[in-house]
Amino acid sequence: MNYRIEKDTMGEVQVPADKLWGAQTERSRNNFKIGSPASMPLEVVYGFAYLKKAAAYTNCELGVLPEEKRDLISKVCDEILAGKHDDQFPLVIWQTGSGTQSNMNVNEVIANRAHQLVGKTIGEGDKTLQPNDDVNKSQSSNDTFPTGMHIAAYKKIVEVTIPGVEQLHKTLVKKSKDFNKVVKIGRTHLMDATPLTLGQEFSGYASQLEHGLKALKNTLPHLSEMALGGTAVGTGINTPEGYSEKVAAYIAEFTGLPFITAENKFEALAAHDAIVESHGSLKQLAVSLNKIANDIRMLASGPRSGIGEITIPANEPGSSIMPGKVNPTQCEALTMVCAQVIGNDMAIAVGGMQGHYELNVFKPMMAANILQSAQLLGDACVSFDEHCAQGIEPNHEVIKKQLNNSLMLVTALNTKIGYYKAAEIANTAHKNGTTLKEEAVNLGYLTAEEFDAWVKPEDMVG
Amino acid sequence: MNYRIEKDTMGEVQVPADKLWGAQTERSRNNFKIGSPASMPLEVVYGFAYLKKAAAYTNCELGVLPEEKRDLISKVCDEILAGKHDDQFPLVIWQTGSGTQSNMNVNEVIANRAHQLVGKTIGEGDKTLQPNDDVNKSQSSNDTFPTGMHIAAYKKIVEVTIPGVEQLHKTLVKKSKDFNKVVKIGRTHLMDATPLTLGQEFSGYASQLEHGLKALKNTLPHLSEMALGGTAVGTGINTPEGYSEKVAAYIAEFTGLPFITAENKFEALAAHDAIVESHGSLKQLAVSLNKIANDIRMLASGPRSGIGEITIPANEPGSSIMPGKVNPTQCEALTMVCAQVIGNDMAIAVGGMQGHYELNVFKPMMAANILQSAQLLGDACVSFDEHCAQGIEPNHEVIKKQLNNSLMLVTALNTKIGYYKAAEIANTAHKNGTTLKEEAVNLGYLTAEEFDAWVKPEDMVG
Amino acid sequence: MNYRIEKDTMGEVQVPADKLWGAQTERSRNNFKIGSPASMPLEVVYGFAYLKKAAAYTNCELGVLPEEKRDLISKVCDEILAGKHDDQFPLVIWQTGSGTQSNMNVNEVIANRAHQLVGKTIGEGDKTLQPNDDVNKSQSSNDTFPTGMHIAAYKKIVEVTIPGVEQLHKTLVKKSKDFNKVVKIGRTHLMDATPLTLGQEFSGYASQLEHGLKALKNTLPHLSEMALGGTAVGTGINTPEGYSEKVAAYIAEFTGLPFITAENKFEALAAHDAIVESHGSLKQLAVSLNKIANDIRMLASGPRSGIGEITIPANEPGSSIMPGKVNPTQCEALTMVCAQVIGNDMAIAVGGMQGHYELNVFKPMMAANILQSAQLLGDACVSFDEHCAQGIEPNHEVIKKQLNNSLMLVTALNTKIGYYKAAEIANTAHKNGTTLKEEAVNLGYLTAEEFDAWVKPEDMVG
Amino acid sequence: MNYRIEKDTMGEVQVPADKLWGAQTERSRNNFKIGSPASMPLEVVYGFAYLKKAAAYTNCELGVLPEEKRDLISKVCDEILAGKHDDQFPLVIWQTGSGTQSNMNVNEVIANRAHQLVGKTIGEGDKTLQPNDDVNKSQSSNDTFPTGMHIAAYKKIVEVTIPGVEQLHKTLVKKSKDFNKVVKIGRTHLMDATPLTLGQEFSGYASQLEHGLKALKNTLPHLSEMALGGTAVGTGINTPEGYSEKVAAYIAEFTGLPFITAENKFEALAAHDAIVESHGSLKQLAVSLNKIANDIRMLASGPRSGIGEITIPANEPGSSIMPGKVNPTQCEALTMVCAQVIGNDMAIAVGGMQGHYELNVFKPMMAANILQSAQLLGDACVSFDEHCAQGIEPNHEVIKKQLNNSLMLVTALNTKIGYYKAAEIANTAHKNGTTLKEEAVNLGYLTAEEFDAWVKPEDMVG
Repeated sequence: MNYRIEKDTMGEVQVPADKLWGAQTERSRNNFKIGSPASMPLEVVYGFAYLKKAAAYTNCELGVLPEEKRDLISKVCDEILAGKHDDQFPLVIWQTGSGTQSNMNVNEVIANRAHQLVGKTIGEGDKTLQPNDDVNKSQSSNDTFPTGMHIAAYKKIVEVTIPGVEQLHKTLVKKSKDFNKVVKIGRTHLMDATPLTLGQEFSGYASQLEHGLKALKNTLPHLSEMALGGTAVGTGINTPEGYSEKVAAYIAEFTGLPFITAENKFEALAAHDAIVESHGSLKQLAVSLNKIANDIRMLASGPRSGIGEITIPANEPGSSIMPGKVNPTQCEALTMVCAQVIGNDMAIAVGGMQGHYELNVFKPMMAANILQSAQLLGDACVSFDEHCAQGIEPNHEVIKKQLNNSLMLVTALNTKIGYYKAAEIANTAHKNGTTLKEEAVNLGYLTAEEFDAWVKPEDMVG
Repeated sequence: MNYRIEKDTMGEVQVPADKLWGAQTERSRNNFKIGSPASMPLEVVYGFAYLKKAAAYTNCELGVLPEEKRDLISKVCDEILAGKHDDQFPLVIWQTGSGTQSNMNVNEVIANRAHQLVGKTIGEGDKTLQPNDDVNKSQSSNDTFPTGMHIAAYKKIVEVTIPGVEQLHKTLVKKSKDFNKVVKIGRTHLMDATPLTLGQEFSGYASQLEHGLKALKNTLPHLSEMALGGTAVGTGINTPEGYSEKVAAYIAEFTGLPFITAENKFEALAAHDAIVESHGSLKQLAVSLNKIANDIRMLASGPRSGIGEITIPANEPGSSIMPGKVNPTQCEALTMVCAQVIGNDMAIAVGGMQGHYELNVFKPMMAANILQSAQLLGDACVSFDEHCAQGIEPNHEVIKKQLNNSLMLVTALNTKIGYYKAAEIANTAHKNGTTLKEEAVNLGYLTAEEFDAWVKPEDMVG
Repeated sequence: MNYRIEKDTMGEVQVPADKLWGAQTERSRNNFKIGSPASMPLEVVYGFAYLKKAAAYTNCELGVLPEEKRDLISKVCDEILAGKHDDQFPLVIWQTGSGTQSNMNVNEVIANRAHQLVGKTIGEGDKTLQPNDDVNKSQSSNDTFPTGMHIAAYKKIVEVTIPGVEQLHKTLVKKSKDFNKVVKIGRTHLMDATPLTLGQEFSGYASQLEHGLKALKNTLPHLSEMALGGTAVGTGINTPEGYSEKVAAYIAEFTGLPFITAENKFEALAAHDAIVESHGSLKQLAVSLNKIANDIRMLASGPRSGIGEITIPANEPGSSIMPGKVNPTQCEALTMVCAQVIGNDMAIAVGGMQGHYELNVFKPMMAANILQSAQLLGDACVSFDEHCAQGIEPNHEVIKKQLNNSLMLVTALNTKIGYYKAAEIANTAHKNGTTLKEEAVNLGYLTAEEFDAWVKPEDMVG
Repeated sequence: MNYRIEKDTMGEVQVPADKLWGAQTERSRNNFKIGSPASMPLEVVYGFAYLKKAAAYTNCELGVLPEEKRDLISKVCDEILAGKHDDQFPLVIWQTGSGTQSNMNVNEVIANRAHQLVGKTIGEGDKTLQPNDDVNKSQSSNDTFPTGMHIAAYKKIVEVTIPGVEQLHKTLVKKSKDFNKVVKIGRTHLMDATPLTLGQEFSGYASQLEHGLKALKNTLPHLSEMALGGTAVGTGINTPEGYSEKVAAYIAEFTGLPFITAENKFEALAAHDAIVESHGSLKQLAVSLNKIANDIRMLASGPRSGIGEITIPANEPGSSIMPGKVNPTQCEALTMVCAQVIGNDMAIAVGGMQGHYELNVFKPMMAANILQSAQLLGDACVSFDEHCAQGIEPNHEVIKKQLNNSLMLVTALNTKIGYYKAAEIANTAHKNGTTLKEEAVNLGYLTAEEFDAWVKPEDMVG
């Protein structure tokens, strides 16, 4: 392979000749061979592109960067955001915990690419842009990484997670209306209980997601806070007056999202409670979705020896050995995602709690986990919606049979004959394998006519 | 021991003669010998007392319970809330997952105590109140337990957690003002960095708690939702028209807290995402507090061979073997609490995700964990505030010495001579064990006068 | 209340006159009002009693403590172990993270009680024993607390957890034999699958617990390591030659358990990976038990509209509103315990990972969590065994009906006619609501006689 | 793009013409668009290749597969293991929870590639091998996936994790020997304590890893159990007599690792406690490594205003804004890995606990997490070792200064003058900012000569 020589403050490094990155990126590649290469999420890189552009505009406006440099930086950032340099960010999550090397990776790529844009080959003549002095002007890794991480997480949540959950929610609401007349047996403790409608059952699922979405949205203001302007330790050293507010405004403009400058930059560098907070609500959604998906696969179980009250779409052969088998595979994918999100929540807590003094150095790990969770939850909701939820149909025959068998219809008699006599009827019918009506009459507690008048499943659903 | 005979629908049970509970409580005592006796939190029992009274008032108002019964139930509930029957609730957390037996424990105690209040001995003559038909009227364990759990958790959070965190927050704000002129070295990656003030450092801690309190308060509306009125499966079977709203209003009146009826009762029985949500924000506070307490013990470390920039109160001899040792014990108590809360968050997630159909049966475990976390966090913040935070003082001598030694003051030169030359100065001084000024002049990058004019720690703190 | 004056190196403290504890205990009571009083597990106190006695014997044998002092210390320790002073240990978990104050609590109680034993009242004349110099001789909190914690955890595991799990395991093995001929439908993905016997199903549960017990026992050697002899930082300062090995031998003798001295005392004070390790295997058991208990409640679900293949004992009325309802309450108690243990595992990890230099200061929290988990798992297994597992019986009628309905019996035809034709038979029968045999013959792939010869559930169970 | 038509039991599917996979793989690609494509770890695919080859050999030996088919299957498996078909496995983790589709992906690739190997183009003429009837013969997804998962995890642990941890362990042992004479101040509660040697400190780290490696190795027997032979539900339906043992022996032969057949196949399909168990010990290592890495960065903190007792290699510029800054980046990468592993442990527990009846359907998620943890831990240990641990050196000057300052040297006087007088000396020196010796003499408790004779740091390290 061909190499060129790049330099940083520690000396010279060989870099692959066809790559835009520089010395510090290459050092990091060599020093952190941990897990798969290039594991740093591209979303973080794009977050950096937004903020580098915003910083260039702000620096220029505040008189510390010439317009030509602003435009060059801006142009490369746009290229990055257009996905043209995705292969120029080879670093891993498991690097310095401030993400310094990914910040420098972006700085170096911008500087070298700008050099090309002015018609030179990399290394030819004086640098068009200095990675540290120009591209990183008025910035530090310590404030850029959390800024990029917040941009990436916020975007992912509003562009993937929320739309995905909302799509599923909409289907669940529709199903709850469609199934509103389908009276079925309720089950508590997994045991037969009093009836409800299938629509009511689904309304509970919808309500869970509504609450979850509300909780998630409650966390967005904290996540909208930008650390940028804090620089090294939160004091904003080496930034011009008025920088923080302006740079946040530019980020808001470029992303179209309501980002603001963090009121307290010391927190914004030293703690990532906003990530902890937003991920906490992703975990809540995972808890909800696990319940929902699990219910649906239990309700759809069978086809002949399970609960079988609903049918779900058959999307693929279910078994490599059992011919004709169909499985609730979307439920399984979704619940696996839920388990992952719950695990990620712990990884984030463990990272979030260990900040030291002016800096938390678990940033890349925290970023990677929230991005994964937000993506997986959104995608899995869409997949579950399209390939499962939309196709759910009641199995009326089974529902009816199971409803009418139930001994818990006896509950309707509590207010007529009291709990104790009602219990006696149910226990006797259970023991004898008979119906409630037979035993109610046998025991002399009511007449057959009274039974028919009082025990109507359709009247027991509210 | 003396026993009397109590009966339920399964038959007779011997109950200690001097106890107010009945057959089902006694069965549970015998069937669930798991862990310490009486582990069910009393706060849940008190939650029940509020709701039983509210249900009696509502039932009476809606014409399904006579006034005398209402008043008897109400009177016993008031006695319970006054702590007069704390020893009548012997059950454990690890019982039926709906808390049915604790609901019956309350029903039985109310019924038997009411019998005493009308001047009879327990078991004498006809029952004054039926535990199921009167005390539990228009109720089920499935809606009472989550209601009691929400009341208990809500009260604990607003009465213990929030005041505790706010007390500590207030001190941190005060310290951040008091220390606002104390310029000190910053530390990132645990390494020397550019300066900030001790007040700025503490402002970050205060900001964390502000965000945490906001996040916690965001969760209260969900927690204020009362399941009561859902009865067995959420349909409200066996409740009179208008019951749900009225009973929630009575609970709000009796507790003085803004409880409302849950919009969706199916969710309210089958899922406890409100607990997951509120506890998620307790976990966030734990993450924040762990960071803060850890910083403080590191800053106070020494007295001679540590960081030693602050002093904290010496509350007790620190060692049984090392004479004169003083330790950051309040930091330790607080961080242990944080670890517990983070663990509890996982227990709650694991319980919350496993609801089945119309009922989640991890209720008592979830209740116990959120109550423990809310209590411990509040108490630990108060303890930490009173015995540590309030007494924190800067150690000016140490702070000054460490500030002036720092090589990272060189950062002020970036905007004057560029990052690369500044780095050369710092690296040379580090290698030679000299000062920045010496090397800056030696290297010929600036004069001594320029150095003094440009490198002023007090100008580097924003 | 009456008080007496006690002193420590920081000065005088008022202590309730009727209590045996001294100044440092009282300081801790006042400084750590966090959660319920006296939350420090008594098992830890008993662990201290064993080790204080062992230290006294060792000190005496090595010539640094007179026999009379040894005997006095030993006598009080025996009283503590007999439960005579349980009310003398009022401290909480949430104290100094080394447990110093609980160590001093024990030292003070022993010293004051010894004073009584020689016929004096507390405070009268010279101290019979010095808490630090005599009772704590050759010790530090830093090595005594982990020693006491290991003794307590080891004892709990071998006396409660392992016997409890083994008792349940024995029942599961018995059931797996009893049910060995009961052919039933298998279920994968919750869907009908090929048959197995109910005994085979239970053998899987038994095998899980066997592996879990083995994993738990694998962790005992690490837990058997005693930190005692490390004193302040692991070097064993202020201990006589040969102390560590002897004191461990005495502990082993007094407890009857194979305790040994830790090979590396620095680890033993600064890290508690042995607790992490043992609790990891408790978590594994919790994972297993959750699966088992969940299966059993699903298998027992119904009675009329669930799976209903087994019956479990009806131990109590299941519902306060639904008469005659019976619920799988033991499964619920057990799965709640599992959730708690999984949460505790995280609390322990969070504590274990945060040791600093020569000391981990999350000791009391870690001790409390492992003791709770070990107790709850053991108790819950016994409760589940006695009140549920032993009473499990197959519901032959249901089992037979569901088996014969199953379309997955078609799997037996794979090796005769290939997966694709077999799938066609199953799919057709499913679509038409017919039997496999009908469709197999209709499709012309085999004769009725071949079907009967090849598709025999009892031949499909291995 | 060009497509060809592939068929399965549900009908026809368009597949990219240049791909080896078939209908079921393509269905899965379309039905599970969750997260990044091809996220299923290749290690699992390779595990499948081993077991498919082993199954082919066993089937042939037992007379149910012709030699030509065995050799074709075997040849493709060898190609897969040589990495020649890495781009033929496009599926994601978040698919069916049994991994059925990845099993079919392998079956389809083998069948189509075999067709090429006999000189035909895919789709030309009769199939050379049937994916289900030949490649999957005597197998089910339900037993192949856990088998492939165990092979992959076992290999990763013995080939990456254990060697990585052992490499770091070796360095820590070497350092503990090298530093054995370097007497330094100890720190407990982060506060100055009695001395120890730097070598002793490192011996504690080494001991942690020794115990961790032992714990990890203890879990390998469970992980060595192969589910293969259980087929659909554990009964081994459609396998020839003697298959299980033979196929495990072939896997052992082909991998060179001691795999055996699982004694209980029902457990092996329905629960993945072996994964829970092994990952539990990975989590233990993460807990240990977090402590070690954290200590090292605190010990190396500074360079001028921290603890600074050791130096670590400077591998890269540490800051984009602070010139000359060097950070403990390897510690940060390692502790981020630890946080991830601790989170993954929870994801695995959540998956492991939720098996239903005869099958756990969280397999791909569990596989992905244990593989990630095992890889990251191994890689991070090597990286940390090479770029940090090996280069650790004591900073003798700092160590000496901090040692001699320490007030805790007074502990040596306990056995001479008692704890109380020793405390008085330390407290007085602390208050007055003087030395122990001065105050000891001033207070009249001992002479200067006695002090010099009794208080020798080098005698206090055991």
